[in-house]
Amino acid sequence: MGRKVFFISDGTAITAEVFGHAVLSQFPIDFEQNTIPFVETIAKAEEVKGQINDCFITTGERPLVFHSIVNPEIRAIIYSSEALDYDFLNTFVTPLEQQLGVKAEPKVHRTHSIDNDAYSDRIDAIHYAMDNDDGISLKNLDEADIILVGVSRCGKTPSSLYLSMQFGVKAANYPFIAEDMDNLRLPAELKARKHKLFGLTIEPMRLHEIRNQRLQGSTYASPRQCRMEVKEVEMMYKRERIPYINTTYHSVEEIATKILSLTGLQRKMF
Amino acid sequence: MGRKVFFISDGTAITAEVFGHAVLSQFPIDFEQNTIPFVETIAKAEEVKGQINDCFITTGERPLVFHSIVNPEIRAIIYSSEALDYDFLNTFVTPLEQQLGVKAEPKVHRTHSIDNDAYSDRIDAIHYAMDNDDGISLKNLDEADIILVGVSRCGKTPSSLYLSMQFGVKAANYPFIAEDMDNLRLPAELKARKHKLFGLTIEPMRLHEIRNQRLQGSTYASPRQCRMEVKEVEMMYKRERIPYINTTYHSVEEIATKILSLTGLQRKMF
Repeated sequence: MGRKVFFISDGTAITAEVFGHAVLSQFPIDFEQNTIPFVETIAKAEEVKGQINDCFITTGERPLVFHSIVNPEIRAIIYSSEALDYDFLNTFVTPLEQQLGVKAEPKVHRTHSIDNDAYSDRIDAIHYAMDNDDGISLKNLDEADIILVGVSRCGKTPSSLYLSMQFGVKAANYPFIAEDMDNLRLPAELKARKHKLFGLTIEPMRLHEIRNQRLQGSTYASPRQCRMEVKEVEMMYKRERIPYINTTYHSVEEIATKILSLTGLQRKMF
Repeated sequence: MGRKVFFISDGTAITAEVFGHAVLSQFPIDFEQNTIPFVETIAKAEEVKGQINDCFITTGERPLVFHSIVNPEIRAIIYSSEALDYDFLNTFVTPLEQQLGVKAEPKVHRTHSIDNDAYSDRIDAIHYAMDNDDGISLKNLDEADIILVGVSRCGKTPSSLYLSMQFGVKAANYPFIAEDMDNLRLPAELKARKHKLFGLTIEPMRLHEIRNQRLQGSTYASPRQCRMEVKEVEMMYKRERIPYINTTYHSVEEIATKILSLTGLQRKMF
């Protein structure tokens, strides 16, 4: 059992969680993490305070509390608990007020709000990624900001969805399948939009593992088939001068941000 | 033109961006935001320093720099620029080291790493959400952690994808369509898994706007149709005692976290 940690917010707690996770990942020890979002009333705050104090009594250690609570009354209640607390927002808001000469105007639920044009762009991008996944449709490629290509299960779908969800980028994706391999070439629809293509590749043995989880013992999953497909596709990337990256050791966050960084596509902010 | 802000990291910069965005959203002024990920070499750090200093010279104002740089050499170069810098990681890591009595072991690319079981669960959840979107398949519902239901375009797809992407939760979704409305009832596959159902609803006029963007002037998008569908579906939620929330004024982050909070489903951490 690791040290107890609470992420607390009067909003979604996503910010507290994402940021707290980044801070804790610097430590080589285990933490037992617990997220409490929507602490929006005095009653709920008192209940959470009770939970923190119980945890202290039970474990004998003060739990770590990372919070991003905008409402000062709610914050005061959490402060008065037995926690060791780390106030994510105010630690930076107060010095920023001085530097900028502008008073903050704290407002709950502003971080993840729908009150901006970018939000509907983002929802459009998510629907676009869904509707243009896996080569389902080659009709709407003019709308694409980017078209990811690669063999089946090399990471195209999660990467396209992450690009849309996190950055509002419209990403289509297209698979090269076994039947294409004898004479691998770009379909005319892709050839006409070559400047939007971005290739993914993967180490054949990792591809074999991933495919085997899905269709164990199949030709599709065999090391021989995986090696052949990856080789053909990489040769095509080189021949056609399509930029590409290897996804084997990278998370969707890393793949998506590397793609943006290499193509110069703008990240939108949510 | 707002005050210039840079988010800088030797990793994806997603943490710096998400957290910086939360901090800046507390201020009632505009910022001009710029993200620079993967500052992994001395040369790149010097280049970024040059960019910051040029910005100071051009605008006459020190740019704000929010960073989460793990490598101390890289960090020192950014520190030595003309920026007003806010060090997201070390501001919390140093006091945490004291509180925990444990030295941090800074490691680049640990935040968004694939070195954990949770990562493949998450990729599985993303593929699950894709394969079980929009009632495409009712075969794999036993695997679902949750099944979102509602009328077309009330927010089911983005919410399902966010649940999988951010929290590793397997979310299927099922639409009630116009043809169902005369005698609205749950399909047997859903009825058998009623404890997993969660309803979404939306204000009819907002639904009309959203549908109209897609199919302008259609019956599907008409206010009358939207009112009727929402009314029938809400009546069914009540009759069948399906918990539900109204998505009209909420972002996917808020919808997804509210669903988890109301159902008690565990958030996994990435």
